[in-house]
Amino acid sequence: MEKGEVRVPNTWENRKVNRGKVNSGLTHECGVFGAIGLENWQNNSEIAQIICIGLEALQHRGQESTGLVTTEGGNDFHIHKGMGLVKHVFNNDCISKLKGTLGIGHTRYSTSAKSEPINCQPFVVHSMHGSLAVAHNGELVNASTLRQQVLKRGVGLSTHSDSELITQALCLIPPDGEVNGPDWPARIRHLMQLAPLSYSLVIMLKDKIYAVRDPYGNRPLCLGKIVSNGGDKGEETTEGWVVSSESCAFITVTRYVREVLPGEIVELTKNGPRTVDVVSTPEGKNLAFCIFEYVYFARPNSIFEGQEVYTVRNICGAELAIEHPVEADMVGSVPESGNSAAFGYSKQSQIPYGELLTKNTYVGRTFIQPSNRLRQMNVSLKFSPILHNVKDKRIILIDDSIVRGNTVGPIIKLLRRAGAKEVHIRVASPPLRYPCYMGINIPTREELIANTMTSKELAKKVGADSLEYLSVEGLVKAVMKNLDKNNGSRHCTACLTGDYPGGIPDELDW
Amino acid sequence: MEKGEVRVPNTWENRKVNRGKVNSGLTHECGVFGAIGLENWQNNSEIAQIICIGLEALQHRGQESTGLVTTEGGNDFHIHKGMGLVKHVFNNDCISKLKGTLGIGHTRYSTSAKSEPINCQPFVVHSMHGSLAVAHNGELVNASTLRQQVLKRGVGLSTHSDSELITQALCLIPPDGEVNGPDWPARIRHLMQLAPLSYSLVIMLKDKIYAVRDPYGNRPLCLGKIVSNGGDKGEETTEGWVVSSESCAFITVTRYVREVLPGEIVELTKNGPRTVDVVSTPEGKNLAFCIFEYVYFARPNSIFEGQEVYTVRNICGAELAIEHPVEADMVGSVPESGNSAAFGYSKQSQIPYGELLTKNTYVGRTFIQPSNRLRQMNVSLKFSPILHNVKDKRIILIDDSIVRGNTVGPIIKLLRRAGAKEVHIRVASPPLRYPCYMGINIPTREELIANTMTSKELAKKVGADSLEYLSVEGLVKAVMKNLDKNNGSRHCTACLTGDYPGGIPDELDW
Amino acid sequence: MEKGEVRVPNTWENRKVNRGKVNSGLTHECGVFGAIGLENWQNNSEIAQIICIGLEALQHRGQESTGLVTTEGGNDFHIHKGMGLVKHVFNNDCISKLKGTLGIGHTRYSTSAKSEPINCQPFVVHSMHGSLAVAHNGELVNASTLRQQVLKRGVGLSTHSDSELITQALCLIPPDGEVNGPDWPARIRHLMQLAPLSYSLVIMLKDKIYAVRDPYGNRPLCLGKIVSNGGDKGEETTEGWVVSSESCAFITVTRYVREVLPGEIVELTKNGPRTVDVVSTPEGKNLAFCIFEYVYFARPNSIFEGQEVYTVRNICGAELAIEHPVEADMVGSVPESGNSAAFGYSKQSQIPYGELLTKNTYVGRTFIQPSNRLRQMNVSLKFSPILHNVKDKRIILIDDSIVRGNTVGPIIKLLRRAGAKEVHIRVASPPLRYPCYMGINIPTREELIANTMTSKELAKKVGADSLEYLSVEGLVKAVMKNLDKNNGSRHCTACLTGDYPGGIPDELDW
Amino acid sequence: MEKGEVRVPNTWENRKVNRGKVNSGLTHECGVFGAIGLENWQNNSEIAQIICIGLEALQHRGQESTGLVTTEGGNDFHIHKGMGLVKHVFNNDCISKLKGTLGIGHTRYSTSAKSEPINCQPFVVHSMHGSLAVAHNGELVNASTLRQQVLKRGVGLSTHSDSELITQALCLIPPDGEVNGPDWPARIRHLMQLAPLSYSLVIMLKDKIYAVRDPYGNRPLCLGKIVSNGGDKGEETTEGWVVSSESCAFITVTRYVREVLPGEIVELTKNGPRTVDVVSTPEGKNLAFCIFEYVYFARPNSIFEGQEVYTVRNICGAELAIEHPVEADMVGSVPESGNSAAFGYSKQSQIPYGELLTKNTYVGRTFIQPSNRLRQMNVSLKFSPILHNVKDKRIILIDDSIVRGNTVGPIIKLLRRAGAKEVHIRVASPPLRYPCYMGINIPTREELIANTMTSKELAKKVGADSLEYLSVEGLVKAVMKNLDKNNGSRHCTACLTGDYPGGIPDELDW
Repeated sequence: MEKGEVRVPNTWENRKVNRGKVNSGLTHECGVFGAIGLENWQNNSEIAQIICIGLEALQHRGQESTGLVTTEGGNDFHIHKGMGLVKHVFNNDCISKLKGTLGIGHTRYSTSAKSEPINCQPFVVHSMHGSLAVAHNGELVNASTLRQQVLKRGVGLSTHSDSELITQALCLIPPDGEVNGPDWPARIRHLMQLAPLSYSLVIMLKDKIYAVRDPYGNRPLCLGKIVSNGGDKGEETTEGWVVSSESCAFITVTRYVREVLPGEIVELTKNGPRTVDVVSTPEGKNLAFCIFEYVYFARPNSIFEGQEVYTVRNICGAELAIEHPVEADMVGSVPESGNSAAFGYSKQSQIPYGELLTKNTYVGRTFIQPSNRLRQMNVSLKFSPILHNVKDKRIILIDDSIVRGNTVGPIIKLLRRAGAKEVHIRVASPPLRYPCYMGINIPTREELIANTMTSKELAKKVGADSLEYLSVEGLVKAVMKNLDKNNGSRHCTACLTGDYPGGIPDELDW
Repeated sequence: MEKGEVRVPNTWENRKVNRGKVNSGLTHECGVFGAIGLENWQNNSEIAQIICIGLEALQHRGQESTGLVTTEGGNDFHIHKGMGLVKHVFNNDCISKLKGTLGIGHTRYSTSAKSEPINCQPFVVHSMHGSLAVAHNGELVNASTLRQQVLKRGVGLSTHSDSELITQALCLIPPDGEVNGPDWPARIRHLMQLAPLSYSLVIMLKDKIYAVRDPYGNRPLCLGKIVSNGGDKGEETTEGWVVSSESCAFITVTRYVREVLPGEIVELTKNGPRTVDVVSTPEGKNLAFCIFEYVYFARPNSIFEGQEVYTVRNICGAELAIEHPVEADMVGSVPESGNSAAFGYSKQSQIPYGELLTKNTYVGRTFIQPSNRLRQMNVSLKFSPILHNVKDKRIILIDDSIVRGNTVGPIIKLLRRAGAKEVHIRVASPPLRYPCYMGINIPTREELIANTMTSKELAKKVGADSLEYLSVEGLVKAVMKNLDKNNGSRHCTACLTGDYPGGIPDELDW
Repeated sequence: MEKGEVRVPNTWENRKVNRGKVNSGLTHECGVFGAIGLENWQNNSEIAQIICIGLEALQHRGQESTGLVTTEGGNDFHIHKGMGLVKHVFNNDCISKLKGTLGIGHTRYSTSAKSEPINCQPFVVHSMHGSLAVAHNGELVNASTLRQQVLKRGVGLSTHSDSELITQALCLIPPDGEVNGPDWPARIRHLMQLAPLSYSLVIMLKDKIYAVRDPYGNRPLCLGKIVSNGGDKGEETTEGWVVSSESCAFITVTRYVREVLPGEIVELTKNGPRTVDVVSTPEGKNLAFCIFEYVYFARPNSIFEGQEVYTVRNICGAELAIEHPVEADMVGSVPESGNSAAFGYSKQSQIPYGELLTKNTYVGRTFIQPSNRLRQMNVSLKFSPILHNVKDKRIILIDDSIVRGNTVGPIIKLLRRAGAKEVHIRVASPPLRYPCYMGINIPTREELIANTMTSKELAKKVGADSLEYLSVEGLVKAVMKNLDKNNGSRHCTACLTGDYPGGIPDELDW
Repeated sequence: MEKGEVRVPNTWENRKVNRGKVNSGLTHECGVFGAIGLENWQNNSEIAQIICIGLEALQHRGQESTGLVTTEGGNDFHIHKGMGLVKHVFNNDCISKLKGTLGIGHTRYSTSAKSEPINCQPFVVHSMHGSLAVAHNGELVNASTLRQQVLKRGVGLSTHSDSELITQALCLIPPDGEVNGPDWPARIRHLMQLAPLSYSLVIMLKDKIYAVRDPYGNRPLCLGKIVSNGGDKGEETTEGWVVSSESCAFITVTRYVREVLPGEIVELTKNGPRTVDVVSTPEGKNLAFCIFEYVYFARPNSIFEGQEVYTVRNICGAELAIEHPVEADMVGSVPESGNSAAFGYSKQSQIPYGELLTKNTYVGRTFIQPSNRLRQMNVSLKFSPILHNVKDKRIILIDDSIVRGNTVGPIIKLLRRAGAKEVHIRVASPPLRYPCYMGINIPTREELIANTMTSKELAKKVGADSLEYLSVEGLVKAVMKNLDKNNGSRHCTACLTGDYPGGIPDELDW
């Protein structure tokens, strides 16, 4: 699957259609990042620079808008947010104004009609107990219930975003008076009970950051440290701490330390990190880390559950070769997301790996009214065959996933026109069949090609000599291969199996 | 070498330093594209759309500015030009206004201070014999002489660009009266005698396009056709013609036909292409196609002299393995420009190929005043190691070229920190030692690392276990492998050998 | 006084300095406008167009940002806001999307550092009882007390603006349960008791608009109607209703009807307007309409308390002639704000009126580092003398007010250089001495020239032959001349006398 | 007449219609400004600042685009040009880069479709004899002939502008060899013979500026000096020289000295100004200064032929009172262009002057699809009546001119609705009947209301009680009143009388 495809625009309207009921959240796949300096950290723009570098490394998780909030220790937070990529929203000028010793940032995905500046995160408010900034990755399954609770308390909400909802819920004193005063951990714990799924949060106060992962561990979140120097001799000393959606964001001066545990509340201060609490899932519920992070979303060099994503994808490719072998001259992939699986397939099958397609990075163009001629062939704009590896060859093409099935046909046509003798499609993930209510924007069931065609039918339609998916078992096997099997099932496969860890969203009626 | 590195800013000032003398041209590596419909072509914006697609596919040749000119058959040309990428300069609105049955376009490279709207190409003028648009890739070696000739005729020049100079030179009637009236081929031929090196030109009049390649064949240019449909059954009929700097731009509805010959003037009209003339090099001079197009500039799927660039780079890698073998566990490359050579090295050496680094596409940031911490490590922003292939391995890293030698050190450090046991650098091209006066912007001699360090010294400085370049002979051998050796030497290797096919530029003294 | 001068930037910091205490509000002089169609009004963008025209006519009240909110009858409000002038923020495209049968708009003034998109009004929230939009002109004197009350209820506030504060206060159910459910008039009444000063509000719900003026009547607000056609024969039928800060905004299809009374809550529905209640000032307090609206802010053709502003200013001029006569050849003004008073002075004194200065409308330039030469003379950029009326004449120059006293000196110099024999300054308002806490941004006491110099000292400093202010009594006399004197004092003269109708703001300590 | 009305868009197409023949020029009413420092002038951005201030003061002559060129004494001119107002095109950043000791600038008018960056002036070229910048106000009557001459010499022209044409004509060595080498005065003189009408030019070389006015003196141009300080005691010393379209641009540090004479070539160097030559009109031709500069274009405080424009307009008003008296209570004007004439009318007729209308400066809006309601009344957006002077009054409304007659009707309607008992229109200039070929963009003959209706018919149509124009004789009388009558006729009245001083433009046939 080509990057971006699964993330179709999902307006309020088609979410209704999609789910038969309204969901108040518009939060999708996003990236969060936070950084704080230890005791003697200098108050300048270095924290902002480190966050900025982190956000760029998380940019694949959201390109719509981005924001960064810092504080020099007081309640007057410095805020800069905007629509677009990190590199366009932030320039040296505004970075230099984002002074501070701690800060958090966010990159947001949505191509929906409600893509508006007001929805940019982090969301910042002044509360009774000081200023508060919240950045969120995930989607509240029970958003509409929580929303009603907040509205009933007399709060006006200015957006439909889960982030504002979370922020206001944190500010409100709970009815039973149990949580009172500026006891933020208690407020966070209370929120986690009200809304157990799904989120990874970074919450900033004037002197600390809370890193919070939902009890199911559905969205990723990990800790790292800021080191003193690049260390020719490896003598790096710790000078600060960072938290990030993915470990791929730990580059240059930051180093990966560990994952935030499912349900864990980590408090980061100038004294370092401290686990405040680990909140359990509702009784009897399993952990549910999104398996699609392995398959598609994450960068290949990110680490989840102690293993590198690249390795998992590589094993998926090997499993695929075992499940669906075929005789051929060359294995390749749709660049670049399918590469790792293709290498795995190649190694397992002993069929050589070769680059089949080159990607035109600059293509952005689609014409409103293209000529008929062009309309038929728009898809082939993005990829061009490399004759050296394609001509007169029998080819196995690995795609990481198939969603609507629109792109694979034109690519096969390109390969055939370039002289490929056979084209066998192997998909390194199982058929995608169900919507996601936990932060990932998936097309309606009708649009998911796996719901309307068997792999054989699809092969015929797209002109492949054969087309096969990895099985759900194969995927789980690949993910679990290097994990401790005794811990039982712990991944969310809802989009593949329809088995939702937190049920489906409750209704919203206004 | 990372893409973009060779193309350093080259202001007027540092060109002086660079060459010891002033060159009037500011034309650098660029891309040109032209399209014309046959007899019954409909007058709408399809020609503009096809050119736009072509320019995007040529975007790697220049990202600074772009322009597109069409005509509906009259002298009132439709023009749209602007600074930036094709996808930013052109939107559906302006494309829809660029009606016509023929047109030409340009993408321009320069990060120089003189990067200004006025220098955007194509350059368009009204002449005694109708309107004229010119798009140019290359650089006139004798620009200053030609400039003096034009100025002496009483023409005011509004820019320092070679393109305006060529345009005005085409308009002027030569002193000896030999070329007169609207005989454009004669004017073009006259220009080719005055200035034999270097250019690929597309010249548009109200009803025709001239595709012109300099007598040395220094810059690439090729012909293609527009076909009626993508052809499920392959029955494509020709409905128009296109001309492009590289064949990689022939996608969707266009097909590669052949190269424009060195010195050839091709006239494209609604009746198709016609060779008007083939102008020879000055007596005794060899052809001189830029060998660096193979090494670095061109897209891997482009075809020069009948061979795919990917194949040549692959052979370079194999030659490199023969010239400089080393024991290791894994061969990889700096993505993506070194990939093809790395596959060649891998195959020749029988050492497995593996992805060593992943690229963060979104990185654009450099901070004006980064903290010391960050300053040391900026280079590592763009690449991250893939542990799966790096950890505990002896690595051979293939780079396509080394210019200043700034990036290789930090990459080696990244790999070592990720657990690489040994890192051997192999460069798939010879040391770069001399400036180019034919359209490619190369740093000053002092900045070229090959002029100040041996490969051993460089290995030590960057922390490599070994570092070796491909020899000039190896490169030439790779390029010639599939060509007819009887034709004698025919490539320009000036930047490697200092052997300039057209001498060095004449002086300019105002 | 030149337009714009009184409105100096007033950052959070200098407000502190100014008042010795912090005020939470950043609301300044603003303009509000609302429109609603009667029963059969068509749902298209006409309401938005009418509001847009109204906002442009109120643009003199705020040029920093503007916003417009409409609804087609549901809770999904259409919103468009932005920084800058109405004509820049709204184009035909966005207007066409602002469909609806009712809507409200706002223009905002502030040149403060906190001029940010997030502070653009109207402020819109979703509440338990439907969506709510609020546009506000004025400043809450007891903002910090109200802010604490709102924060204590557990609401997070995202800005420092009074508008958000008002909006959230309206959403909250009061502690004593007195006001409950969707009874918006009760909520508004409750708010008016909590915060009696100062505001003119337009509040929009999905099917109605509330127009609210504070009990003191401090800020202006008036009602008008939308008529069927321009009426060649005057047969205009009423098809909708409008509410506006000033009657000058009733142009083209809208007609002035009456003022909203101090303390009045007017409900506008598709059935027309209805007075819901008229809330009194706190016991024993007088009405306090801002007298500076007459002097400076309002457009000359606006109507307050039944009289045209132009007339009042004209009478001020006449009073000034009575209080401070002087022999001269010509009376003129600093265009254009002093014109009406100058005509009054001229008529009273029988000295002819003449245009003395012409204004260069396009001047916007101030250079960061002007040469010394230019630094001395920057003020004279904006005005040029008209020799015809200045040369060899004894001149009386009428200014509407003097704030810092910076501009009058350079103007006198200009007039003298143009040949004026004598220059007598007459200021058509009393000395400005005190800050305003009710929505008008006035420089600190130290910066107000009237606090540091007598009129004689100032005359000497600026090089005038004489300089005199209108007395407070004279101003009040002019304002009251055509009003019923039996109603007692009813204007706020705090900035002239220090007599604050609602006391000074309470403290804020976070 | 409202400012802006006479300047309708005039595309290439409607110029054809307008004149029955094509004119190559697109130069319209523009403003030019030049400045040069004397011997010891410091090389910084002060010259640019002074030009910038000058251009803003000339902004009324053209708001479409603007440009500024300076030099530090060499051929490497600093250039900054752009679309829009001076205050938008220039910021402190770019001003600070425009270093130099001399420079020229331009503001350009055109709302034509060909309004494009490429047409921004000054036009700059490199010539055989150094760099050359040209700024032009006017329009070449024989542009097409001159264009053919230039094209025949083999020059390609990149625009249709007269400015490029003039620039290239200055560069070309004339065929007869008479003018050769870098003798710029000879080249200028030669150009003036080829094209005697109409232009005011500022021409910049690396060390001097030429200020040139066409032999007919059709467009205005005057000299001023830069003084050392504003001079409290009047001791100003001359430190540089300036040249400007109008003397209203001599503000702050510049002082009016004298007009450039018709046909005069003034050379400005670091030694001051020097008259190089005064070229006569073609034999038997009279001077022809555009009388419409007095009526409409110029700022009231500009000086032409030794008299202030305000005075002339004032006398026009008095003449109008003599020619067309009427009984009334109040004389007023359409602000602000009619003010001076209204004062003249008032004084002559002894009817008091009063402000009748106030202008909404911020109005910019016209809706693409306004409701019917709004469509009828768009014109009334810009002006609002002042009841104080209108209600129950018999009114005389002075307009400076009437072009299409579109605005006067709605204004009368506004006044009547405000209670005016009678409305008498008096136009302070004669009926406009003919096109202008000398730089002013006038609607087609059919669109000029004076060609289709008598004043009585027009009065009836617009609903005036009476409507009368000033006679041509009255206008000429007013203009000549303070001039020496012995010099004979010397104004161009072509747009009023059809009497063209230089004939009508020659044909252009490509």
